[in-house]
Amino acid sequence: MSNSTFFLSAFFRPQGVALIGASRDPAKLGYAVLRNLTQHGYTGPVYPVNPKAGEILGVRCYPSVLDVPDPVELAVIIAPAATTPTIMQQCGQRGIKAAIIISGGFSEAGPAGAELERQLTDIARRHHIRLMGPNCIGVIDTHTPLDTTFVPGMPKPGVITFVSQSGAVCGGVIDWALGAGIGLSRIVTLGNQADLTETDILEGLADDDETRVIAMYLEGVDDGRRFVDVARSISMRKPILAIKVGYTEAGRKAAASHTGALAGTDSAYTAAFHQAGIIRVPHIEALFDAAISLANQPLPRGEHVAVLTNSGGPGVLASDALMANGLRLVTLTDETRFCLRQFLQPHASVINPVDMLGGADEHDYARALDALLKDPGVDAVLVINVPQVLVPAVRIVRGIAQVVHDFQAQSGGHKPVMTCLIGDVSLDKAIEFMRQAQLPLFPFPERAVLALAAMVARRKWLEAPPEIADGKLLMADSDLESTLSNLQSKISALPMKLARSAHEAARVAQEIGLPVACKIASPDISHKSDVGGVEVGLHSASAVRAAYKRIIKNARSARPDAVIEGVTVQAMARPGREVIVGAMRDPQFGPLVMFGSGGVYVELLKDVSFRLAPVTRGEALAMIEETLAGKLLSGLRGQLPADKSAVADVIVAVSQLFAADERITEMDINPLVVYDEGQGAIAVDVRVMARDT
Amino acid sequence: MSNSTFFLSAFFRPQGVALIGASRDPAKLGYAVLRNLTQHGYTGPVYPVNPKAGEILGVRCYPSVLDVPDPVELAVIIAPAATTPTIMQQCGQRGIKAAIIISGGFSEAGPAGAELERQLTDIARRHHIRLMGPNCIGVIDTHTPLDTTFVPGMPKPGVITFVSQSGAVCGGVIDWALGAGIGLSRIVTLGNQADLTETDILEGLADDDETRVIAMYLEGVDDGRRFVDVARSISMRKPILAIKVGYTEAGRKAAASHTGALAGTDSAYTAAFHQAGIIRVPHIEALFDAAISLANQPLPRGEHVAVLTNSGGPGVLASDALMANGLRLVTLTDETRFCLRQFLQPHASVINPVDMLGGADEHDYARALDALLKDPGVDAVLVINVPQVLVPAVRIVRGIAQVVHDFQAQSGGHKPVMTCLIGDVSLDKAIEFMRQAQLPLFPFPERAVLALAAMVARRKWLEAPPEIADGKLLMADSDLESTLSNLQSKISALPMKLARSAHEAARVAQEIGLPVACKIASPDISHKSDVGGVEVGLHSASAVRAAYKRIIKNARSARPDAVIEGVTVQAMARPGREVIVGAMRDPQFGPLVMFGSGGVYVELLKDVSFRLAPVTRGEALAMIEETLAGKLLSGLRGQLPADKSAVADVIVAVSQLFAADERITEMDINPLVVYDEGQGAIAVDVRVMARDT
Repeated sequence: MSNSTFFLSAFFRPQGVALIGASRDPAKLGYAVLRNLTQHGYTGPVYPVNPKAGEILGVRCYPSVLDVPDPVELAVIIAPAATTPTIMQQCGQRGIKAAIIISGGFSEAGPAGAELERQLTDIARRHHIRLMGPNCIGVIDTHTPLDTTFVPGMPKPGVITFVSQSGAVCGGVIDWALGAGIGLSRIVTLGNQADLTETDILEGLADDDETRVIAMYLEGVDDGRRFVDVARSISMRKPILAIKVGYTEAGRKAAASHTGALAGTDSAYTAAFHQAGIIRVPHIEALFDAAISLANQPLPRGEHVAVLTNSGGPGVLASDALMANGLRLVTLTDETRFCLRQFLQPHASVINPVDMLGGADEHDYARALDALLKDPGVDAVLVINVPQVLVPAVRIVRGIAQVVHDFQAQSGGHKPVMTCLIGDVSLDKAIEFMRQAQLPLFPFPERAVLALAAMVARRKWLEAPPEIADGKLLMADSDLESTLSNLQSKISALPMKLARSAHEAARVAQEIGLPVACKIASPDISHKSDVGGVEVGLHSASAVRAAYKRIIKNARSARPDAVIEGVTVQAMARPGREVIVGAMRDPQFGPLVMFGSGGVYVELLKDVSFRLAPVTRGEALAMIEETLAGKLLSGLRGQLPADKSAVADVIVAVSQLFAADERITEMDINPLVVYDEGQGAIAVDVRVMARDT
Repeated sequence: MSNSTFFLSAFFRPQGVALIGASRDPAKLGYAVLRNLTQHGYTGPVYPVNPKAGEILGVRCYPSVLDVPDPVELAVIIAPAATTPTIMQQCGQRGIKAAIIISGGFSEAGPAGAELERQLTDIARRHHIRLMGPNCIGVIDTHTPLDTTFVPGMPKPGVITFVSQSGAVCGGVIDWALGAGIGLSRIVTLGNQADLTETDILEGLADDDETRVIAMYLEGVDDGRRFVDVARSISMRKPILAIKVGYTEAGRKAAASHTGALAGTDSAYTAAFHQAGIIRVPHIEALFDAAISLANQPLPRGEHVAVLTNSGGPGVLASDALMANGLRLVTLTDETRFCLRQFLQPHASVINPVDMLGGADEHDYARALDALLKDPGVDAVLVINVPQVLVPAVRIVRGIAQVVHDFQAQSGGHKPVMTCLIGDVSLDKAIEFMRQAQLPLFPFPERAVLALAAMVARRKWLEAPPEIADGKLLMADSDLESTLSNLQSKISALPMKLARSAHEAARVAQEIGLPVACKIASPDISHKSDVGGVEVGLHSASAVRAAYKRIIKNARSARPDAVIEGVTVQAMARPGREVIVGAMRDPQFGPLVMFGSGGVYVELLKDVSFRLAPVTRGEALAMIEETLAGKLLSGLRGQLPADKSAVADVIVAVSQLFAADERITEMDINPLVVYDEGQGAIAVDVRVMARDT
């Protein structure tokens, strides 16, 4: 571990552990933790602190942490919340530099608890103690080994580190990992994060040789931008996988505007994970399926997959899953097909998926897998076996393992092999063999494909990590007006003017040039067409006058309380393709910029892409490409391509201004009308919401 | 079983079984099948046929099936393909009425095998033998019990019947079901379906008391319309769940038109399953998760779910999954919240999800579950427990089971309870208890939610099964021209006329009324705008003349080989909302009708809904409602609602004409421009492809 994160070694490899709150009562957590500390392999001294006990579980007790002898680096505290500040103070006096508070009753339990937690943080800072928790279940390190939790059992050593913001989920995961035979390296639970946060732990894992893959269960992050920076630098070297819970919460939030409704915090997480290279997975099973695959198999060079099976149905299931996850069935070379044809049954299919039929034995699997791995177009192989009575599965997987070993030992043998055995009770030996061989094994093809998709996603991210714009050079203008006129200088907008009477509206319309559109001008009405406050295609002065009157009347009757300033008269944009560019602020991650389908399709499709702002031109173009709106701009069915370059300019300009000027809380350009290549884009409606300053 | 399907009893409850091809060699299938026939509980006589053996496994052998004594109803045949016609003949002579051919080497193995299979079918018809297979693994009936397969182990008796078109998948599923402790009723594999098809089996299961839920693994169906009719009548009484493999194949097909590209066979299956009430599930795990839940729990009355947990994280995971699957978190009544508040921890959350915190014990679970079940707004409860060291999971599930039992015993107690225990090794006792109690138990909340979503889908289908249009009354017109003019009389189309010269085009344009659109007229060019063959908004005669020349030139240069008839001059539709209505024929299910987003969005969004044609007006309206296009027609952001009724008329008319006249192979109305309510819809471009007759 690097110097800056040296503190973590006091949690994972402490010289001596004091357990404050050790209990004689097997029904108490203070007993279960002592059991794990002393019976899960830790070889350093353990000092139970309990003023009323001489010894527990055969270990001598001490009346107070002050009495504990050297060496002691880590304190594990299980005590009523109210007593913990005193205990932390004593830990400081005793020179202890790392503490895990397992007890609850702090900020999760209301204001009084939050005050206690604040005191703890103060004491920790004063005494240079790093604190994990409170309200957590501590750490497990399978390599040291050390187990400060009260969870029965300890997973076998492995290279996957699991960081959890839920102690309960972590307990469940440990139990499940034991059943699934999954090896883990460090297990960290964070509790209330009074001091150490998920980002601190990530930093500590950057240079940790025992951690090859980081799997996270996240409920939120503390400092969004720091999290992204730290995670990104780690992602360059080792994969980070995360479950982020709460992904549909965004939908529940009442929203004041298009951008607000579309953003919500979940979009911010998606944007942040993209930038940080964190691979998001949908659930716990997928988290570990992907982690095991990333830990034990090379990354595929691309998304072209060969499927090898002894049964057609599962081959089709696999093909479906591949395509649904953006992977592809590779077209095998003539050589490969010729080679397969030499030894497979005459009716076997040598078109991908390669179906060797039910009679295929271990030799067929080995030869076919070897041929597929040697096909230059194949990036990864998914091997499926529906066990047959006459060919024990363990023989099949032994053959597979040998071929994988030989192939991957060659220089350039960087192709992952995922194996799927359909069944359960008859497969014990085969499953155990694959665990020992550390080869990814799945009971259903869909799970193998999901894990493979995570590997392909990682490869793609590593090959072209998103560009990061330097926000530090951006300066806000002195006042909001300047910012807005700065914006106007960077994007083309339609000429428009406020009119305060029907007569003035007609005059303005002739000035600007007919036809025009008229819109209600009111700070209180954000969805103008909802109140009958928009009329378009007005071709004459008299039409404008009549429209003015109707609009004012409609607005007054729909919203009698609204302040009405008049009517905005605006030139009409000639028709083009309509998109939206917007920006909003996320509580965790700060400024976000958005691009997507505009007009009525904004809410219908929710076809939007977000990034942390500011963005580079390259990322702006990437945002365009990942939406349906981008496909529309590329030109469909004989349409010419639209001016994506102009759109990217608008996205960059909005992202920079918005990031620089914190007074703007939200903005929308909807629609931005985009013309054919080289002909630019025009902002038809720009809506800016700013803080009262 | 009903009379018409009496044949099935000879497969499931035969009076005596002859095994033709019994073997002494434990490495042969003929041995494994005899083992299963004699050692898996079947109490009737088993007659191994093997001319060279006196006895096998202690059972007397016969030289030929002709020598087998009474009673014998079922023949299981494992023999070289070439010998099977003779064997079938002998079975017929011997009076056997049911045969299972396990051997392969028939239609799956090429033309010679197909010829053999045809012979088998002939013999079977002649001798009134019902034939299962060939190339299948036979049947298991856990109630009789009877096992004609060679798969080791037999699942415990249950109420779920599994019908599989893949023998290999079935073998894997049996093995997996054994491990998962899943009870099954009948297991049927269909092989090549030379005689008995999936639909025949379904018919036989309609009145089968041992089958409460039907789970199917489908690769295709034999006769689409008959399948739908039979399945629909069964769905009214018992749930049918299906995996249909090949769902992305549609995307791979090259497509000649919009509708063709969007339909493919998978859309036909979706439409057929909708009509038949078959619940489609994505994979094997989901198939049995849903089957177990449907078999053992009452259907929810609606989609409002309460979540009860002892840990926040999994509660959020569950909430995410509920929303992602179209279910809802119910708002609890004040009474329920007051009741929960009485006994839960002060910091527990009594807002749904109800988080009782880590200390919750079995009594808390029981009281809280009881309170939630009694809340009138709650349709279903998802109970999550992350096992805690101090509260064994088995105590929790016992409490849950008692409350569920008491509640469901009451009249009106029709609310399902799904339980999720996160973990594995520490849960053995709890898992075993739940299996005994036949309560659905899941390791992760997402799986429970997916199963619950299947139950809600079934409830909704039962409440409003899709209307069926009577296609029998439809008559095709005598010739195609009449059909088309019949269509024109039922839908509004823009006036248009073919022009064969620039001069004629200008004259026609003035006749129809300017402005007009001009489009290339060529039987060889279906995507006109791709070749520069469309110009719109032509406001003068001279503009029309110039457009004519450009269009002809563009088309000639893009497609020198195409027959060009001239240019179609068409009135311009005033702008409205653009949708598509189309129809195509599916090889399995016949005529399909389609509705969706039109214009450039057709291919971008693939926002389409299909039905088997013809459709009723009610179903046409339902099609509209299930698309984004339907939302657009409902009116977004102050738009008035569009004329859905006119769209429904067009869908019905197209579906009827298309169903009646088989000469039309495909048609598209794209766009159909829809105006505000009461103002109708206009077909701007109607494309009809007909067979050469």
